[in-house]
Amino acid sequence: MKEIIAIIRMNMINKTKQALLENGFPAFHCRKVMGRGKRKVDFTLIEEILNLEELQGTKLETELAEYHRLLPKRLLSIVVQDQDVPKVVETVIEANRTGSPGDGKIFVLPVQEIYRVRTGEKNESAL
Amino acid sequence: MKEIIAIIRMNMINKTKQALLENGFPAFHCRKVMGRGKRKVDFTLIEEILNLEELQGTKLETELAEYHRLLPKRLLSIVVQDQDVPKVVETVIEANRTGSPGDGKIFVLPVQEIYRVRTGEKNESAL
Amino acid sequence: MKEIIAIIRMNMINKTKQALLENGFPAFHCRKVMGRGKRKVDFTLIEEILNLEELQGTKLETELAEYHRLLPKRLLSIVVQDQDVPKVVETVIEANRTGSPGDGKIFVLPVQEIYRVRTGEKNESAL
Repeated sequence: MKEIIAIIRMNMINKTKQALLENGFPAFHCRKVMGRGKRKVDFTLIEEILNLEELQGTKLETELAEYHRLLPKRLLSIVVQDQDVPKVVETVIEANRTGSPGDGKIFVLPVQEIYRVRTGEKNESAL
Repeated sequence: MKEIIAIIRMNMINKTKQALLENGFPAFHCRKVMGRGKRKVDFTLIEEILNLEELQGTKLETELAEYHRLLPKRLLSIVVQDQDVPKVVETVIEANRTGSPGDGKIFVLPVQEIYRVRTGEKNESAL
Repeated sequence: MKEIIAIIRMNMINKTKQALLENGFPAFHCRKVMGRGKRKVDFTLIEEILNLEELQGTKLETELAEYHRLLPKRLLSIVVQDQDVPKVVETVIEANRTGSPGDGKIFVLPVQEIYRVRTGEKNESAL
């Protein structure tokens, strides 16, 4: 079993959620993170983001101003069986590829045990 | 050494924290995530949550409205030695089992190295 | 390839970011977590934190009051090649060591696959 961690653009979450659902992977959790990749972030882009209407006065705007070159991203975590990894990776890439820097990264980590709290089911049966 | 990731109901965090403490596992971190499992979430449940007094006017309420079928959850991360995994899993399951869908999931991931920043201690001695 | 997870003090993020950048590790993401280690937290410390001007009236202050002995921390995640782990660990320890309890912990987890969404590049080439 594997945990697939995808770090994607903020505004891609709904499209990605929909794509995962349509491909049979409805179960996941997500959270907001601040991140950056290897490239230097173009400052005009940050200015642009800081001027976005929806950001005005939010905690996020403060964080952005505080961290300068860190940008808000969504982190998705999907836990699946080994044989489903390629399909999930492909689904996430297809939903998120715009061709511009900042499209995101995907990491695959090993998961050794899984439990469903409600029933105590383990591993494959808990997925 | 293992990282035990538990995704549980928002209102179970204090009970779980207490149970972990009493069983000798005081060290962990937690964060808020938005998640869902395999089942379709009953919309009346979301309505109910959106009406919870403590949610009114919070950022979380906005996020809930935005994501529709994603629900707020707490994610706990506890790093322990291999032989302690069964006890932590059992403690988390016992504290969180209500028998209703949404009780949560537990994932066990391998951890290869641990360091305590203050002393530079490594692995077992850093736990 | 490895994921290096560092849990550090809130006010150490900029120093750590700078140190990572200077040592050739510009790519990472971070997030706010609530955590605690093995030691009982001194209550006067919490009182002190709650009185910090920047905390007054924030959501964080409410969370602190709610969790009692959980303290806000920053979690950093840096994914690197195996041979870079010692240098990243050393960089994070050096930037964060004050000698007082609460300096933080570092966890090293195995990562099996990495993808760059924009190009589809895999593993080393995606880093």
